[in-house]
Amino acid sequence: MAKDTKTPRPKAETPKGFRDYFGSDVTDRSQMLAQIAGVYHRYGFDALETSAVETVEALGKFLPDVDRPNEGVFAWQEFDDKDKGDWLALRYDLTAPLARVYAQHRNDLPTPYRRYAMGPVWRNEKPGPGRFRQFYQCDADTVGAASVAADAEICAMLSDTLEAVGIARGDYVVKVNNRKVLNGVMEMAGVLDPNDPDRFKEERGIVLRAIDKVDRLGPYGVAQLLQAGRRDESGDFTEGAGLGREQVEIVMGFVAATTRVVTQLVEDFPDDAGDSWAPDNLRVVMAHPHEFKDRMLTYLRNIVGASKVGQDGVAELSEIAELLNLQGYGPERIRIDPSVVRGLGYYTGPVFEAELTFEIIDDKGRKQQFGSVAGGGRYDDLVKRFTGQEVPATGVSIGVDRLLAALRAKGRVGGQVAPGPVVVTVMDRARMADYQTMVADLRNAGIRAEVYLGNPKQFGNQLKYADKRNSPVAVIAGGDEFDKGVVQIKDLILGAEIAKNASLDEWKDRPSQYEVLRDDLVARVQAILKGQG
Amino acid sequence: MAKDTKTPRPKAETPKGFRDYFGSDVTDRSQMLAQIAGVYHRYGFDALETSAVETVEALGKFLPDVDRPNEGVFAWQEFDDKDKGDWLALRYDLTAPLARVYAQHRNDLPTPYRRYAMGPVWRNEKPGPGRFRQFYQCDADTVGAASVAADAEICAMLSDTLEAVGIARGDYVVKVNNRKVLNGVMEMAGVLDPNDPDRFKEERGIVLRAIDKVDRLGPYGVAQLLQAGRRDESGDFTEGAGLGREQVEIVMGFVAATTRVVTQLVEDFPDDAGDSWAPDNLRVVMAHPHEFKDRMLTYLRNIVGASKVGQDGVAELSEIAELLNLQGYGPERIRIDPSVVRGLGYYTGPVFEAELTFEIIDDKGRKQQFGSVAGGGRYDDLVKRFTGQEVPATGVSIGVDRLLAALRAKGRVGGQVAPGPVVVTVMDRARMADYQTMVADLRNAGIRAEVYLGNPKQFGNQLKYADKRNSPVAVIAGGDEFDKGVVQIKDLILGAEIAKNASLDEWKDRPSQYEVLRDDLVARVQAILKGQG
Repeated sequence: MAKDTKTPRPKAETPKGFRDYFGSDVTDRSQMLAQIAGVYHRYGFDALETSAVETVEALGKFLPDVDRPNEGVFAWQEFDDKDKGDWLALRYDLTAPLARVYAQHRNDLPTPYRRYAMGPVWRNEKPGPGRFRQFYQCDADTVGAASVAADAEICAMLSDTLEAVGIARGDYVVKVNNRKVLNGVMEMAGVLDPNDPDRFKEERGIVLRAIDKVDRLGPYGVAQLLQAGRRDESGDFTEGAGLGREQVEIVMGFVAATTRVVTQLVEDFPDDAGDSWAPDNLRVVMAHPHEFKDRMLTYLRNIVGASKVGQDGVAELSEIAELLNLQGYGPERIRIDPSVVRGLGYYTGPVFEAELTFEIIDDKGRKQQFGSVAGGGRYDDLVKRFTGQEVPATGVSIGVDRLLAALRAKGRVGGQVAPGPVVVTVMDRARMADYQTMVADLRNAGIRAEVYLGNPKQFGNQLKYADKRNSPVAVIAGGDEFDKGVVQIKDLILGAEIAKNASLDEWKDRPSQYEVLRDDLVARVQAILKGQG
Repeated sequence: MAKDTKTPRPKAETPKGFRDYFGSDVTDRSQMLAQIAGVYHRYGFDALETSAVETVEALGKFLPDVDRPNEGVFAWQEFDDKDKGDWLALRYDLTAPLARVYAQHRNDLPTPYRRYAMGPVWRNEKPGPGRFRQFYQCDADTVGAASVAADAEICAMLSDTLEAVGIARGDYVVKVNNRKVLNGVMEMAGVLDPNDPDRFKEERGIVLRAIDKVDRLGPYGVAQLLQAGRRDESGDFTEGAGLGREQVEIVMGFVAATTRVVTQLVEDFPDDAGDSWAPDNLRVVMAHPHEFKDRMLTYLRNIVGASKVGQDGVAELSEIAELLNLQGYGPERIRIDPSVVRGLGYYTGPVFEAELTFEIIDDKGRKQQFGSVAGGGRYDDLVKRFTGQEVPATGVSIGVDRLLAALRAKGRVGGQVAPGPVVVTVMDRARMADYQTMVADLRNAGIRAEVYLGNPKQFGNQLKYADKRNSPVAVIAGGDEFDKGVVQIKDLILGAEIAKNASLDEWKDRPSQYEVLRDDLVARVQAILKGQG
């Protein structure tokens, strides 16, 4: 621990990359998480909360941040008698701990085990504006189900969840892809040797990360990363995968799959395409969902060619699409999209991502698609790390902070300032018990209320405080009032209105302050609150 | 990070002293926290969630675990370009982060600032059976209120909170003391020099920790710790404070305050004392609440004698007791108890503790009082560490895991096993979309339901699974059923009853399995669930 014996005062700051949540930031999130938990629960998922701390060996190394300290996790060494304890770390997601839990308790848990979890995770990323090193995730996973029906269920549940919290149908899409298809493409592009999986590992990592960035870099940027590399706006150079022209063609054909299939559809059904079209404006796809699905699968089948793993991937995609279509989840909710690859290293089959398709205004005033709020996929080898036996598993993780931001952008939560408490002011310090009793009476009637606990000398400060608290009503009582058995009630909302409209005749005769019997306090405050709506 | 390149498999275990929470452990806690948040909110407190990670300098060193690594916190050093980054640590409570937040945002926050917070905290304690290094706290604090009315409010709110979650009046007591009284006693016992506060610091630490252990060690154990020291059952020796006989008398007179005052009351009002009395069986106190309060204050006034700080402390205690009495919080809910000292180093005035007074059976089959579930007090100097200006503050922290355990012990939560989902079994893998649609229909009617996603080959496994899930109903449909447009519904609760009572005539004619039209599935399942209650 730092020995700063000479530092007189600590800095009142969060560590870099961390933040605090105030008031409705906390309660809005709780409410949203409760809604999500409701959907997960109805789908048969059980709650699980693992400890925030795991051994480093249990977490494994699956983050893409290979160049960060401890590869992207916050870690420290346990002290034991010989100073050689275990290395511990904060969990970087909720999936790795689930694999540990299932391996540890597999004899007691049902199989398949459906579980949901919500809570903070920590990443030791380079702090930067808007990039946080602690954030909330809300996951649902099914462990022990090999069937892609489990993946289809997760996708359907994700769609239901987004609608349950207030994202309208049409404002989101769940995109489905398959890592096996991607591996088939890698095989065809000559960067995956099925007989020697470790060969070209580095190249594949670069290709994967490049594809993952297509939304941000565009096709040209991806193509640069597939070849020699790319220099970004800041001048930083990212090493490329060094692929040749034919290899790049194959990968880019995969990246462009949606664009090409949609183009075909527009050509064949121009009447259904509308005036404009784009991958984000898929009118023609909605008009021909089955045609879209069949053509996309055919397109992918062609790209993966003779690759066994690639063919398996397309078959799985086909099965998922079929299951979802039969249940009525059409492409307006869930559709195949080969651009989805997911950055984490542990996925082995289907991968999915929920994207919000409406636009928001970013920090620089530009319109931008909101983007991804959830992602997941199948990871059949995570439990095997512990047990040696393959245990199939699939799941999804919702980025809670981003989803909440989206709901706010859409006005679904938090639109108004939350009403503050009724404030009982203090005119006579010796009467504190009486003031506290008034407050208790109000609270016992279900009204949020508090007594002013600052220095009561300057009464103006008390009303300023009530204002800062967004109080609807202030209660005032001094010696005269106590003698007469009355209190003054001030309607602060009406008072503010009158102050704003003081010149209008209609406001002149409306008093915002009443004298009422102490015994009527609760009833009269209730009436005012009701009137304020 | 550990380089265990040769370790073939990681161990599937939480780190020592950490644990996982399953199912109702999570949901019962959420429910209880929501109830607590409801009370805090009604009292005018606003939610705050700080990051789990703070700088070590912001947290300060207030834990009693001076002999633990990093003095009881989990800490690590940030990497920067020169490997000389800040030391970071997991928060060990929710109070130190509040002081940091208030210092950081004091110009934007209302003053007084009432806030509540709930979440895990971490202590780097020596792991041991039943001792956990991550646990939940649920705090409420008022920053910027110097008046003891703020302390009284916290005590009243704590009492209301316990009753709101289901602890009956009489099953708990909120005990109030004051660190200043304790300091007065220290002064009188010659281990506090008002002109040189750093003198005897070590002795005072030992005295404080000794008094804090009176419930566990009894008066004789405390007296040993005040003198040469104490050897515990395991043979470990704890160094004592080395006080002389007269000094010990004074401290022990303070420790025994409740016993002595109650004894006086019993002598003076034998008719109200009942057959038996004990500090835990305070019939005589309830019968004479004002007498108890007045005598206790007089007793304490005598002990602190001429000590200025001690007199201040008694005056504050008196004011709090008066405020609470006037609001109707008598000694059956809140009372003065000098045995409360609280271990944390930052308290400066009133301290309080909520104790559950009912007995439970411990691990070894012995009856034990449940003990403390919450504690807190006034800490006027915590914000000053950052700003240099004194900012008065007071608050309480509820030990969430212990309170939940208490509610379970009293049968207030979790009594029954939570009902599992309806399980739709899989007879024909090719019909998965149909099964998933059945499940969706049930869910859309608000019924928790899931399809079996394991290997469907052995049907017996599916029913075993339903059993493990505590399912109320299983749905079965194979080729015949699909051809006829029907499904089989199995009432698993009734089925279990029949299996148990198979010999009784009345059960013989009650079938637990029905064939119903597929279109009636939802209505019939609803009817069965209703019948099961």
